[in-house]
Amino acid sequence: MAEINRGCLQVYTGNGKGKTTAALGLCLRAAGHGYRSHIIQFMKGQIDYGELKAVNYLEGLIRITQGGRSCFVRREDPDPVDVDLARKALELAGKEIKERSADILVLDELSVALDFKLVELEDVMELIKSRPHSMELLITGRAAHPEVIEAADLVTEMKEIKHYYRQGIGCRTGIEN
Amino acid sequence: MAEINRGCLQVYTGNGKGKTTAALGLCLRAAGHGYRSHIIQFMKGQIDYGELKAVNYLEGLIRITQGGRSCFVRREDPDPVDVDLARKALELAGKEIKERSADILVLDELSVALDFKLVELEDVMELIKSRPHSMELLITGRAAHPEVIEAADLVTEMKEIKHYYRQGIGCRTGIEN
Repeated sequence: MAEINRGCLQVYTGNGKGKTTAALGLCLRAAGHGYRSHIIQFMKGQIDYGELKAVNYLEGLIRITQGGRSCFVRREDPDPVDVDLARKALELAGKEIKERSADILVLDELSVALDFKLVELEDVMELIKSRPHSMELLITGRAAHPEVIEAADLVTEMKEIKHYYRQGIGCRTGIEN
Repeated sequence: MAEINRGCLQVYTGNGKGKTTAALGLCLRAAGHGYRSHIIQFMKGQIDYGELKAVNYLEGLIRITQGGRSCFVRREDPDPVDVDLARKALELAGKEIKERSADILVLDELSVALDFKLVELEDVMELIKSRPHSMELLITGRAAHPEVIEAADLVTEMKEIKHYYRQGIGCRTGIEN
């Protein structure tokens, strides 16, 4: 399997659906070409997401690590436990980059963790700069930081035009998680 | 495996990346819950997309049918071959709906096929209305038709904020296809 010939930094942001899902789809497509992906999920944990089960089919080509817990993080006053979990997830990302054990690294909801000040901008920027040329890096989450956008090669805003929760339909297992 | 308790019509549109990819990710996640997906790709064919290989891992939970050919379709004057292929793809979608052989039906790039007048709006709207309550229907592609948006439960616009082709980087195998 060849290396990715030119790894890019992709950012999926905005208030619409499809950010994590697009990252997941990209990893699935890349698996078809033999690329290995690692999805590190910030602020997510202990939830029975469909993707955790689905990747079992992919013979190790897609790995998912949850770097959070199931409860909501308070934006104004985050619990030190959440700060610690987010920093550990970022450290794990650094380790992946150093060891080059994945072709595609997804830092899912990192933009939210940054916006909530669970991790430092400086550390994120250092991580971005340290990645090898052959690694594709994806950062998802609302409210992507302007410096991250500046450093990115590709930025897509997922914009909510219409959402069914406004019709009173709640979260649907199997579709949203 | 339970049925989807309330199938929605989701539309991914806009000029940004991630529409097909998000649909693919949704199917992967849903596969983790045991749901079966069928992705019918309009205006795509004979191209070695990674997703075609990747779904082989999923033990039949995700099927992909290409309903097009590899060359570009002329917008102003589409070839009758392309019209015929798009109509056949739409007929296949109708058959899937009738037979209920998938929990999730993705009509990939249907909005483009509609915009290019390869298929009729009337036929698309009829298809949308005919779907069972338990089926999730996804329609992707730029320039979604206002009537399709009107009928949808969830609409996300993927908006290009920044793209690396502006830096002279071309299409990258394994990532984009």
